[in-house]
This record gives sequence, structure tokens and C-alpha cells, in this order.
Amino acid sequence: MKLPEIIENTVTHFSRLPGVGGKTALRQTLIMSRWTKEELRLFGESVRQIADLKKCNECGFFSEVELCNICSSDVRAAEKTLCVVESITDCMAIENSRQYNGCYHILGGVLNPLLGIGPDEINIAKLVARVVRDEIENVILAVGPTVEGDATCSYIKYELDDKVNVERIGFGVPMGGSLEYLDALTISKALENKKRLV
Amino acid sequence: MKLPEIIENTVTHFSRLPGVGGKTALRQTLIMSRWTKEELRLFGESVRQIADLKKCNECGFFSEVELCNICSSDVRAAEKTLCVVESITDCMAIENSRQYNGCYHILGGVLNPLLGIGPDEINIAKLVARVVRDEIENVILAVGPTVEGDATCSYIKYELDDKVNVERIGFGVPMGGSLEYLDALTISKALENKKRLV
Repeated sequence: MKLPEIIENTVTHFSRLPGVGGKTALRQTLIMSRWTKEELRLFGESVRQIADLKKCNECGFFSEVELCNICSSDVRAAEKTLCVVESITDCMAIENSRQYNGCYHILGGVLNPLLGIGPDEINIAKLVARVVRDEIENVILAVGPTVEGDATCSYIKYELDDKVNVERIGFGVPMGGSLEYLDALTISKALENKKRLV
Repeated sequence: MKLPEIIENTVTHFSRLPGVGGKTALRQTLIMSRWTKEELRLFGESVRQIADLKKCNECGFFSEVELCNICSSDVRAAEKTLCVVESITDCMAIENSRQYNGCYHILGGVLNPLLGIGPDEINIAKLVARVVRDEIENVILAVGPTVEGDATCSYIKYELDDKVNVERIGFGVPMGGSLEYLDALTISKALENKKRLV
């Protein structure tokens, strides 16, 4: 009982997405085989069009024009602050908190020597150039607390140390988090980052 | 921070798949935005092509020609048995067990009055016609033990009762299943379906 090549192809593409294994991909593809011709055409077309998306020349966020609306905002630029994030989704998460009013810089990944991702594979050279050119005063590293994230932060700190004030976002107990269920590393970070009550 | 319309469109299409919520769809779409132009073109094209897939005129499985290789097999037809399943994936699961050598009939769903799925929406009329025409002797209902599955089986049994021997697959403790963790309904089915040791 062989499946048609078209199904197999779609399954292969789907399986490349994170969190989608062979079984899920097959199930999703078979469910799509019940969609109408028009629905499939629209979906296929929108996937194809992703290739045509343009990105902001400065921060790397999606933008139809050369600079995204954050990078082209004078109010944002006046903050002289860059928030360095790993991905577009991280950038959106920070923007949704409405607590940050500077510009962003999207790395597009973190250093990972095992996967062959060095400083040239992620957007670091452009970050350094931008800090110098725009006379940035503060760089906030909003990179996750993984081994790769730590290494990336150390590298950026080393590159920027003499040019600008480099900080990293705080780690500790998340809001609404129950101490009972948190891992030992988070607890020790929370103790390390304790703050005097005023 | 607005996402481009192309991204939003792809997210909408993705979210229609089972088990994919808005957040997963967005994450997957953003990861796809790092794929190359060629990869995106191929994926889009294979999704679009799903609409062109042809199905077997008899059982409903994918087939490039009028009859799939199971329906057109004389050995299979000689069994005079039809196995009725809900979906193509169920059909593949049974075929993978290598314990069944008759033909299949894919319903493409189960009766669900709440969702407006009546006997005309699923492939039942064709099943009855096929049983009569091919002088089928046994019909095995391999439909899951849900309320809708039970209703579908009752309906098919009623339609075919005077024409053919209608059976349903057995329910009970799955192989390797631990009694301790099974639900009460499965246990009671297993007790109901007890078998004399020989």
C-alpha cells in the first residue's frame, strides 16, 4: 500500500518543521487531502510567497521597505539602546511586554560550534558596526540562558566591551511560578539575583 | 509590530490543521521564513498538487488509475470480504498489520449529526451497492469505539443486515497494555469479550 509521491513529498517538507515527526506530518497531509482545490492553491501560494518577504536592513525584522517602522522611528533611535534577540518571535515577545522603547537587533540564531554556527553565520558584525555608527550607549542582551546563549553573550560582550555598556536580561523565578516546581538552576539564579527590598 | 500579510495568511492555513494552534503555526511559519526560495517553492508546489490526487473509484484510497492495486487484485477480491474504515490512515494501519487480505472501503468520516454529517456525507451508499454487486460475504467494521463510531456501525449493520455477515473488530486490552492504567470502559469491554482458553 504505497502512498502517492505528492503525499510523500509534502510529508517530507512538513517533517522538517520543529515538533512535527513523520506520523504527525502524514496525518496533517492526509487531512489536507480533504481540503478543496482552492484552499490548497491558496495555502501553497502563501508558502511560496514567504520567499519574497523582505527584511529590515538594520534589525532583521520583516519589512516591506528598507527600514522597519521601529528602526525608522526617531523616538526609538533617541533611546540609544539596542536589544539583541535571537529570533523574530523573541523580538515580538519583548515588544508585547510594552516595557522597552529602543531598537532591536535580531541575530537569527546563537553561536553553536557543533552545528557549525560561528560569529559569521549570525548577525554579529552588523551589530558591532551599528553600535559604532549610531553611537549606541546601551546594549541589552535578551538571549535565553542556554549554553549556546551564554557563549553568544560572552562573545558579544567581548566584541563590544570597549564601545558600550553591555547588559543581559535578568534570570530568576517567573511571575506566578511556584518555587516547588522550579529546577535547581533557576532557584540558584534567583538567589544570585536577589534584590534589597526598599 | 505587525507581521506581514503573507505570514498571517500562512499562519491561518496552518492553524486549520489538527493539533496546530495559533502559536505553533506562527512558530512554524517563522522558521519557514528562513528556508531558501527553492525549498519554499517546492513545499508550496507539493501542497498545491495535493488537489490533483486521484482516488480509487471503489475503496477511496489514493490511486493514479481508476482502481487501486488492492481493488484490482483478483486474490483480494476472491476473499469476498470488505473491511470498512473511517480514513486512509486507518486503512494503512490495518494493511501494516499484514493480517487482512480482503478489500477495503474508506468511509471518509463517521456519522455525526451535530456536525451535520449524515449517511449521505460519508461513503455508505457506495458500500451497500458494492456489497450487492460483488456478492461480498463478510463485512468487517474497523471503526473506532466512539459514540459516533458506534452509531455509524449500527447504521451500516441496519443497511446491510439482510445482505451479508456484518462483524465489528474486537475491543479489549491492547498488547503490552497494563491493566492498572487502562480506563474502566476498556476493562469492561475486555471482560465482555473474554475468550475460553483452549
